[in-house]
Amino acid sequence: MLNVHTRLQAWQDRIEAVLDDVLPPASTHPVRLHEAMRYSVLNGGKRMRPLLVYATGDALGIPLEHLDIPAAAIELIHVYSLVHDDLPAMDDDDLRRGKPTCHKAFDEATAILVGDGLQALAFQILALHPRLKASPAQRLRMIEHLGQAAGSRGMVGGQAIDLAAVGKPLSELELENMHIHKTGALIRASVMLAAYSVEAMDALRLQQLDHFAKCIGLAFQVQDDILDVESDTQTLGKTRGADEAAGKPTYPSIIGMAASKAKLQDLYDEALNALASLGDSAKLLREIAEFTVKRIR
Amino acid sequence: MLNVHTRLQAWQDRIEAVLDDVLPPASTHPVRLHEAMRYSVLNGGKRMRPLLVYATGDALGIPLEHLDIPAAAIELIHVYSLVHDDLPAMDDDDLRRGKPTCHKAFDEATAILVGDGLQALAFQILALHPRLKASPAQRLRMIEHLGQAAGSRGMVGGQAIDLAAVGKPLSELELENMHIHKTGALIRASVMLAAYSVEAMDALRLQQLDHFAKCIGLAFQVQDDILDVESDTQTLGKTRGADEAAGKPTYPSIIGMAASKAKLQDLYDEALNALASLGDSAKLLREIAEFTVKRIR
Repeated sequence: MLNVHTRLQAWQDRIEAVLDDVLPPASTHPVRLHEAMRYSVLNGGKRMRPLLVYATGDALGIPLEHLDIPAAAIELIHVYSLVHDDLPAMDDDDLRRGKPTCHKAFDEATAILVGDGLQALAFQILALHPRLKASPAQRLRMIEHLGQAAGSRGMVGGQAIDLAAVGKPLSELELENMHIHKTGALIRASVMLAAYSVEAMDALRLQQLDHFAKCIGLAFQVQDDILDVESDTQTLGKTRGADEAAGKPTYPSIIGMAASKAKLQDLYDEALNALASLGDSAKLLREIAEFTVKRIR
Repeated sequence: MLNVHTRLQAWQDRIEAVLDDVLPPASTHPVRLHEAMRYSVLNGGKRMRPLLVYATGDALGIPLEHLDIPAAAIELIHVYSLVHDDLPAMDDDDLRRGKPTCHKAFDEATAILVGDGLQALAFQILALHPRLKASPAQRLRMIEHLGQAAGSRGMVGGQAIDLAAVGKPLSELELENMHIHKTGALIRASVMLAAYSVEAMDALRLQQLDHFAKCIGLAFQVQDDILDVESDTQTLGKTRGADEAAGKPTYPSIIGMAASKAKLQDLYDEALNALASLGDSAKLLREIAEFTVKRIR
């Protein structure tokens, strides 16, 4: 049995190959658009959401090849949201993972279209990609969940709440509500889409996995806020202190740094508790939870 | 039997009600985003694509209620593309159907998110909306076709070609290729998604309908280009001469006005020919074809 780090690395390599495969080749007309789509997706992201898909599938005994397309679809949605969030009219970021953002490397119009095209591709591959071995009913459940999680009552709604919150005093509850939509919905989708690959899923188990996903989704965001204060631009690969400079509400700014770190630990503990009944099969899910709270970028 | 105009009007009313129904209520959190989504969709558009869905269904004997969700999904994709196309980084339009464009009435960030949310909603309703009476396999076929038609090898790709073409001399063939992607793909999807509601569709009939859709899709664009020169801002509900002013290639600018009008007539004739074997059942499809080439806005 390979150790956990080797397996996570293998999954990272695997999702890179899957994404490379589902994206239209750079030679596909219109070339510049497809180059920009590939530039935005194939840029060495952490792939946290695909890793969650694989790790959930691993805990449930689902073969890897059944998870490739859900993992890729979720990552395409995630990347499209980053490309649009980075636009001047939104967060106006020049750097993403240490490289120029899509609208900087190409142009704004192309970045808008890259996001639009990636979203369409995500749903398209869930609908009919032959690599996904799932019944039509399972595919539809995945598409419906991803549509809900990505849409105006999920991720896109969270981004709208985020933009409206700039410069305003937010309560901790309002901040949490924003993150549950903005990043939480897609992280939950990562766990749920993997679970939907199981024909008859135990309801309690589904609930436990969902709770795990909620906890680490929020923990991810708390750690993001902490890193925005305590890390540096080079390590982060994006501008340190950007949230603070933009007047964005963060956990440290609302509840203080010490309480933020305590909250991170609480969420980590709760996430691990939710996995208790899965025993050793959830080893990789635990590893991802640990990575989430201990990562430095 | 109601006359054709009364029936088309009834379908327009019907799709307004369906769109109103599938859109989240304006009171849904986040309120401003949902207000902006409803502002953009429920604004008295021509609803050409939904009418095509209904008319194709009518020609094939499909009950109206089976067509509501495909019609709404396609219109949501169409509206999202207009909202994004109107952005300053794209066509930079202030007026749409005589009203301020979404980014003018709200703001740029909201307009980006409105488009993103509408796209997700389109796929979500095709996946599970109970009003759609279709087998899981039929739903998936619709989602796959719409994903392809809307994506980087369809509508979004066409928009990228359009942006790259500004100020450049284009051949008639290159112009046609742009329109086949930019507007043609979604118009074809309107006919195809209706046809996919039929369990075992005759291949020749499908091909005839597809050819009809190609012809009127292109005819629609030729007439658009003609109107941009010959109509006025008030009638159009958008700025007359905007294409010319923006240095966009158009049929009149490339092949001249007389040849553009001849081409429009040829496409109209070819569209009608493609419907010949459908006889009287295609009466409303013919009506839409006539409307396409004779409309004044």
